[in-house]
Amino acid sequence: MHVMIIGAAGMIGRKLAEQLARDGRLGTASLARLTLVDVVLPARPGGAPETTIRTADLSVEGTAETLVALRPDVIFHLAAIVSGEAEADFEKGYRINLDGTRWLFEAIRRAEGYTPRVIFASSIAVFGAPFPAKIEDSFFHTPLTSYGTQKAIGELLLSDYSRRGFLDGVGLRFPTICIRPGAPNKAASGFFSNILREPLQGREAVLPVSEEVRHWFASPRAAVDFCLRAATMDTTALGARRGLTLPGLSATVGEQIAALREMAGDKAVRLIRHVPDPVINSIVAGWPRDFDARRAEALGFRAETDFAQIIRAHIEDELGGTL
Amino acid sequence: MHVMIIGAAGMIGRKLAEQLARDGRLGTASLARLTLVDVVLPARPGGAPETTIRTADLSVEGTAETLVALRPDVIFHLAAIVSGEAEADFEKGYRINLDGTRWLFEAIRRAEGYTPRVIFASSIAVFGAPFPAKIEDSFFHTPLTSYGTQKAIGELLLSDYSRRGFLDGVGLRFPTICIRPGAPNKAASGFFSNILREPLQGREAVLPVSEEVRHWFASPRAAVDFCLRAATMDTTALGARRGLTLPGLSATVGEQIAALREMAGDKAVRLIRHVPDPVINSIVAGWPRDFDARRAEALGFRAETDFAQIIRAHIEDELGGTL
Repeated sequence: MHVMIIGAAGMIGRKLAEQLARDGRLGTASLARLTLVDVVLPARPGGAPETTIRTADLSVEGTAETLVALRPDVIFHLAAIVSGEAEADFEKGYRINLDGTRWLFEAIRRAEGYTPRVIFASSIAVFGAPFPAKIEDSFFHTPLTSYGTQKAIGELLLSDYSRRGFLDGVGLRFPTICIRPGAPNKAASGFFSNILREPLQGREAVLPVSEEVRHWFASPRAAVDFCLRAATMDTTALGARRGLTLPGLSATVGEQIAALREMAGDKAVRLIRHVPDPVINSIVAGWPRDFDARRAEALGFRAETDFAQIIRAHIEDELGGTL
Repeated sequence: MHVMIIGAAGMIGRKLAEQLARDGRLGTASLARLTLVDVVLPARPGGAPETTIRTADLSVEGTAETLVALRPDVIFHLAAIVSGEAEADFEKGYRINLDGTRWLFEAIRRAEGYTPRVIFASSIAVFGAPFPAKIEDSFFHTPLTSYGTQKAIGELLLSDYSRRGFLDGVGLRFPTICIRPGAPNKAASGFFSNILREPLQGREAVLPVSEEVRHWFASPRAAVDFCLRAATMDTTALGARRGLTLPGLSATVGEQIAALREMAGDKAVRLIRHVPDPVINSIVAGWPRDFDARRAEALGFRAETDFAQIIRAHIEDELGGTL
């Protein structure tokens, strides 16, 4: 089996590549070839079978055809520019997140006798306030960002191209991934990870919102599991509705902090500085808090059920297993 | 005020142009100029102010810029290829219904200091089975046709371009328009109009489904009213959700026939020949039957409340007021 990851230099892409390299297989199929693509050169995971790493920009016309000519059996399409950048640069957002996605699907459609499994990374950003406390699978998409709009359109295209038999798509609406490894970043959602990752390593972190704020989470490990399941599942159960709200953990910041205390003690919790930021507060107020993801659950998708599990996964995967 | 109708040779476009010409105004504003555009030359309505009729194909790059250069205050974007054709010719459907719409919005965005009201004709085809008996405003879009996919994407773009302040959009999910004037056509939904229009004029019509089939209707007159209201309403109430499920009448074929009997007697009803068609039956089984359109109703949109009203509107508007 030949697996391609587009967006392989991103956090989920990198972890997915490492997992595939470790497993040496995808489901019951042996992994014969791995092609890792991003706008910057992706890392080459250790232990992988025949692996090609390459730079390519899906938002340049013709790139998709070059990638599709390699005829991977499974394509993970994780490439996107993030919410803040798509909002700041309207044209760039549409070119990368919409045109890039459409050109990929078009290149697949035009390739004769070729119907790969395509896993498309969508986002809970397809939902925008106001919404019910718990969002059901049948709730409509009302994005409040251009990024969310582009992801919602990508899902519609994925479903139509699947219905027509041009590809076999699964769209994954990822929860906010927590704990994101690496340095703190400037994303509005960054604090959800910062307030755990930094204190776990004895460093200060800033909390810009109140402890009552509730949000929807899954670990990087769960994100990789979602990808693998989407790549190997029987898609006939999806019918023409190819987008899935993934399971996650609905938790407050207070619950995050309680789990940190449980795992790393008061000393770690004292490293969190409360510095309210009205701008971040108003952004976060428009975000979903909880979902009833029963469709994906019925299909076997699983996420963590408490924050201690999420912290433990981080300690095991990023900190060598101990504090 | 300068009003442009793109798709002015279609049924709703033609009737809208005639209504505007008769009124000489749109809301409280005097109608100074009317520009009617379609791929075939639109008819010139009698009594209109300065009227330009022209052929133009929005799916040809550059056309949108030419139209936008005229700086209409209100643009009705009604141009589309229909469901059957978009399904039969995948590329043509996406080029006209998606690219054409996006190019129009893009041309408006690039025109400096220009933020017209844009009324975008969407469709209940954005909904596909299975769905609840009565579809609420917050139900998700699950199109089962490429046409429905293209309309759902158009709505997402309309909302995002409106949120960003590039245009001031209203998306209208039209019910099935009944009674469509003119000759019977081959659209799968044609029989809903045929079984009334033809017997009203003493001609036979074929009914391919059972009398229990339920669907969602409004008259051509209501469709024109929807357009005028969308062009003049205060859009602040819409926020970032620019698509509206319009009010309609949920009725069975049996109720259509009962209304025909009431208006034109048994003689008319006897002109309906029951010729079951399994293909049309299976298509119609996937169509919505009923909506709770409370959002549009709260904004003042109104449709007919029984089929006698719909038949009466047809007799008045198409048959000179008498049978």
